[in-house]
Amino acid sequence: MSALAVGLALAVPAQAQDAAAIIGAEKARDAALQENIALDYVTQLTTRFGPRPAGSASETAAAEWAAGYMRDHGFRNVRIQEFPLVGWDRGEESAAIVGTNAQPLVVAALGHSPATPDGGLEAEVVRFSTLEAFQAVPDGSLAGKIAYVDAGQLVPMQTGAGYGPLTRIRGAGPALAGQKGAVAFIMRSVGSDEHRMPHTGTTRYVNGVVPVPAFALSAPDADQLSRLISYGEPVRMRLSSTARTYQTTSRNVIGDLPGRMRPEEIIVLGSHMDSWDLGTGAIDDGAGGAITLAAARAIADQGRTERTIRVILFGAEEVAQPVDTGNGGGAYLRSLSPEDLANHVFTGESDFGADRVYALQLPVGAQTGVFADAANRVLYPIGVLRSSEPELDGGVDIGPIVQAGVPVFGLKQDGLRYFDLHHTADDTLDKIDPEQLSQNVAAWAGLVSLVANSDVDFRAMVPATPTP
Amino acid sequence: MSALAVGLALAVPAQAQDAAAIIGAEKARDAALQENIALDYVTQLTTRFGPRPAGSASETAAAEWAAGYMRDHGFRNVRIQEFPLVGWDRGEESAAIVGTNAQPLVVAALGHSPATPDGGLEAEVVRFSTLEAFQAVPDGSLAGKIAYVDAGQLVPMQTGAGYGPLTRIRGAGPALAGQKGAVAFIMRSVGSDEHRMPHTGTTRYVNGVVPVPAFALSAPDADQLSRLISYGEPVRMRLSSTARTYQTTSRNVIGDLPGRMRPEEIIVLGSHMDSWDLGTGAIDDGAGGAITLAAARAIADQGRTERTIRVILFGAEEVAQPVDTGNGGGAYLRSLSPEDLANHVFTGESDFGADRVYALQLPVGAQTGVFADAANRVLYPIGVLRSSEPELDGGVDIGPIVQAGVPVFGLKQDGLRYFDLHHTADDTLDKIDPEQLSQNVAAWAGLVSLVANSDVDFRAMVPATPTP
Repeated sequence: MSALAVGLALAVPAQAQDAAAIIGAEKARDAALQENIALDYVTQLTTRFGPRPAGSASETAAAEWAAGYMRDHGFRNVRIQEFPLVGWDRGEESAAIVGTNAQPLVVAALGHSPATPDGGLEAEVVRFSTLEAFQAVPDGSLAGKIAYVDAGQLVPMQTGAGYGPLTRIRGAGPALAGQKGAVAFIMRSVGSDEHRMPHTGTTRYVNGVVPVPAFALSAPDADQLSRLISYGEPVRMRLSSTARTYQTTSRNVIGDLPGRMRPEEIIVLGSHMDSWDLGTGAIDDGAGGAITLAAARAIADQGRTERTIRVILFGAEEVAQPVDTGNGGGAYLRSLSPEDLANHVFTGESDFGADRVYALQLPVGAQTGVFADAANRVLYPIGVLRSSEPELDGGVDIGPIVQAGVPVFGLKQDGLRYFDLHHTADDTLDKIDPEQLSQNVAAWAGLVSLVANSDVDFRAMVPATPTP
Repeated sequence: MSALAVGLALAVPAQAQDAAAIIGAEKARDAALQENIALDYVTQLTTRFGPRPAGSASETAAAEWAAGYMRDHGFRNVRIQEFPLVGWDRGEESAAIVGTNAQPLVVAALGHSPATPDGGLEAEVVRFSTLEAFQAVPDGSLAGKIAYVDAGQLVPMQTGAGYGPLTRIRGAGPALAGQKGAVAFIMRSVGSDEHRMPHTGTTRYVNGVVPVPAFALSAPDADQLSRLISYGEPVRMRLSSTARTYQTTSRNVIGDLPGRMRPEEIIVLGSHMDSWDLGTGAIDDGAGGAITLAAARAIADQGRTERTIRVILFGAEEVAQPVDTGNGGGAYLRSLSPEDLANHVFTGESDFGADRVYALQLPVGAQTGVFADAANRVLYPIGVLRSSEPELDGGVDIGPIVQAGVPVFGLKQDGLRYFDLHHTADDTLDKIDPEQLSQNVAAWAGLVSLVANSDVDFRAMVPATPTP
């Protein structure tokens, strides 16, 4: 902490819009550009523990280690909050075209997909190029078939907006397949790359289970299968999976940097510790923990803040089984008393990789005014623009507390290459660009420093019922 | 065939340097830029048959199909030349770090690697950062260990020159591991990408076998393992493979476009039909067959050539087991009488992907002079420069006939991204750029047209013993 920063902080009653708070935020921002905790954390996390599926021994070990990492970096009241969930183990899986054009294909089962019968299943593939075409066939009409939806590649967008339309297919596909009588569901991966890297992900449960074995094909494999089907002869596939579910626990790791003036007022910075099993969860979401931890540390290094900064590494973000209770965000919300919850003054989530932040989204009601102006002043110099769109939900981890009324900000990250890697084996440390990671930490440090040294009541600014 | 081309060809005794031959070559070149046989061939080949390991049912079926494709496209005397070899089936394989940092790693066994004991083997990993350091340890000193060489990433070069130094490790590693007492050999993939795509490939045999189970790690996995070892604690791995060898046959597919004046004089255009088992062999080497077939067809479409153009789709290029007799190039050479061989006037091989041709290499003795000038005139307009380096060996497929005295040309392809994909699951059709493929076909069509309508005796130009 510089003497100057202390002097200014003491001299002026802090408000976000105050010059002292802005200067402090600029210092935190600039310190973050020089720090190396973020890269160290995500390097160690991904190297030591590899993939960290929710409820796995690896996630548990990583959570213990991360708690120690937080303590070593000055976090207080570091604790691990355990909760039960249904885990899922992928086991062994394979896929192949059989018959005249026999050849292996690369697939990955979707999360909580059930096993195939022992030895696999074999059936003819029926292709649909839209979800709507699949929905339109009569119930039972695909009896004994494999339903295949190939609706094309995800369109890369800075905002990541290409993801939504395709996740509808991933969500609805297995249930529809069951309804239509199909023995399995396969789809082109929800992804923007052209590598033999299938993208896994969750789907919708029916009565608590995924109704039929469900797999994503890598993009080149989807190309291949669709092309072969276009040649006009029936295509049969063999699919095999030994996936299984099991009862386990996941956990949230929580650490605070207590405020000195209003420690009961809490800013929650969220991200998740669990990852899919295929990669090592560097961009999804080791990076989020790295960014929030490092930003909090860079702020605290400038002096204790007025409010408390709470960093939470959530468990079980990628899955939620049971849907209502099996994820970390819900477990955290349930742990809060009404008073605690009312003292959650602001929250944000980092769960979109490690590329640069390009825009700040504030909640409805707080998008203009002195706080927004101050934030713009701190963030514009590092390339973060003021967005005209409000932040609405934040993400899966903080979603439950946001739904419960906590105001939410969004530091929007460049998503152009995020869906090349997302939920694949290729989500590994080497995909993180250290320079963009630093900018990202700086954006978080700048904004959160402003909030933490402010007495702005965001709840009072935000309408009681957020505009949808 | 245009009337003009015929008229010119008949009017002037053809020599490569003649205006008529140059005009014919330019026509063939420009026709090739418009053709679409190359993309059609490689699309159908890779889609219908997928991976085509030497001696597999898939390679056999692909060869039958390709023979039909040649016949359908006007090739004469299309024939399949069978030869025996020891095939290799990868089976199932897996790798994992065990103990405190337990996590799966992505590996691929090297060709003809033996199986591990049932249930796999488990041992401590000893890392070397150079082949020399590995060579330097005493024999027997790695008893019970896994020897690991991580000498860094392949340096991408337009020429592909980064490949050679690292293949020394792949070649020598398993034998050295055996000599040092290690139970297995692992190495960073010989590749330039950062994807979870291990690069397989051949290694050296000792008494006809690969001495210990041998695997390539993908680059991110090699990064991960080396980083974990750098943390200082012993790292143990479990390796498992059910690979096996089996007696089988491979085959060359041969088709001619017979010359009208000196049909006994043969120009051999080589490439290979077999592929590694991980990808579908689009760039290695479906593209080579596509380029040579389409170039020959584009030339013949301008009128019959004076000499015969022979396109050979070789079998078993990726492996050679037994080393002396188990590959297609050797089988072809053995099938030739001394007279046949003496009538092989020129040869070239396309086995370096589907990106553009940037340089022509001619054999020592033929690098300058009227033929070289004519070739330059035909190729320069499509971006192919005259190289100051002589072509020496051509490649694995035509190597045996080149060693037996057949002059060889080289149309050098851009290799900057070749080793991102080479010998991986990612070698798939989508990696072929149709525009660069067309330029490639045009370069082949232009050059080979000149040679086929020439009476230049390249053997007479080339010194009896090629300069090494």
